[in-house]
Amino acid sequence: MTSSDSVFRIVVLASGRGTNLQAIIDQLHGRGSIEVVGVGSDKAEAFSLERARAAKIETGVFTRERHGDRLVRDLAMADWIESLSADLVVLAGYMQLVSPEFVTRFRGRIVNVHPALLPSFPGLDAIGQAVEHGARVTGVTVHFVDEGTDTGPIILQRAVEIEARWDREQLEQAVHSIEHEIYPEAISMISEGRVRIAADSPRQVIIDQ
Amino acid sequence: MTSSDSVFRIVVLASGRGTNLQAIIDQLHGRGSIEVVGVGSDKAEAFSLERARAAKIETGVFTRERHGDRLVRDLAMADWIESLSADLVVLAGYMQLVSPEFVTRFRGRIVNVHPALLPSFPGLDAIGQAVEHGARVTGVTVHFVDEGTDTGPIILQRAVEIEARWDREQLEQAVHSIEHEIYPEAISMISEGRVRIAADSPRQVIIDQ
Repeated sequence: MTSSDSVFRIVVLASGRGTNLQAIIDQLHGRGSIEVVGVGSDKAEAFSLERARAAKIETGVFTRERHGDRLVRDLAMADWIESLSADLVVLAGYMQLVSPEFVTRFRGRIVNVHPALLPSFPGLDAIGQAVEHGARVTGVTVHFVDEGTDTGPIILQRAVEIEARWDREQLEQAVHSIEHEIYPEAISMISEGRVRIAADSPRQVIIDQ
Repeated sequence: MTSSDSVFRIVVLASGRGTNLQAIIDQLHGRGSIEVVGVGSDKAEAFSLERARAAKIETGVFTRERHGDRLVRDLAMADWIESLSADLVVLAGYMQLVSPEFVTRFRGRIVNVHPALLPSFPGLDAIGQAVEHGARVTGVTVHFVDEGTDTGPIILQRAVEIEARWDREQLEQAVHSIEHEIYPEAISMISEGRVRIAADSPRQVIIDQ
């Protein structure tokens, strides 16, 4: 067994500030068998790329301007991810919908974190949607990515009770801090081979203890 | 001030076993200022009617057979509720959709409990829907009733984390026990005049402390 056999290689895609990326770097990167081997972004100026460079992780930039349409960009990104021999693609504030071709290429090996208890509040501004709806409880979902918007099989969820005295910023902090807990937790379980989709029931994710 | 001025009168509508009715009777009826003045059902054989009789509460039966269509039944039920001078109509496992005319007549004075964290899993068999969807967290919602199915402004919600080792019955027990906690809690707050819909924002329910 070569040393690379025992390393679980993840590529993180991020468009924004990259706080989930940072949580993954801090909690998982280089610890145990997990290595973040690449950070990709659709935005050249994404702060997540700074975080990657600071951690000496390879970066890839795949802008719409350079690659034209989404499919061309996604295929370039997929080639880059495969060149890094990634075991898992981790969407972390990646603000683009990935194309069906991208999903097919990494079927069952793409995960996302969403700031709501899906199926409630899919899509953009999930926290704002929860507030507008008058929800008393929201939360965080980690799920496999399929062709839909935030519709894939659910791996982990955790609730956040919305305190009436909270302003929007406090709610966002509460939700994001749960993201930073359960996303590394889910990735860690996947890296240990403990997470699988039930053979007879594609929505049921089984976590082996 | 006559004694009736200080009593908050509720009518409970229930189709089934009436476990939420029993929680309301046990926790609220005749305690403080709350009195359950009537229990109505669309089913003559509903066990909830037995529970009402055991607590010496007036019952009303409004079957489809006797009243023909939903609107005629709902208007007869509304007349009965008004004859009891009810302050609040409490749906507790009432398996009929009430008509818009009924909602209009008791606008802002009808509440329901739903075994999911709305807007996830509205409609029938919410617990089964959550299981089918592979949800890791579900819960309970108490909300005002509007013309839609489980769409009204949310008063209280509480989460239930679904343990992988639970069977369906254990999950149901966990959800129902939360219902039996937060439904009486919400009704109690309403009876104290602490619950109101924001004047400028019809989805936002404000609870005064």
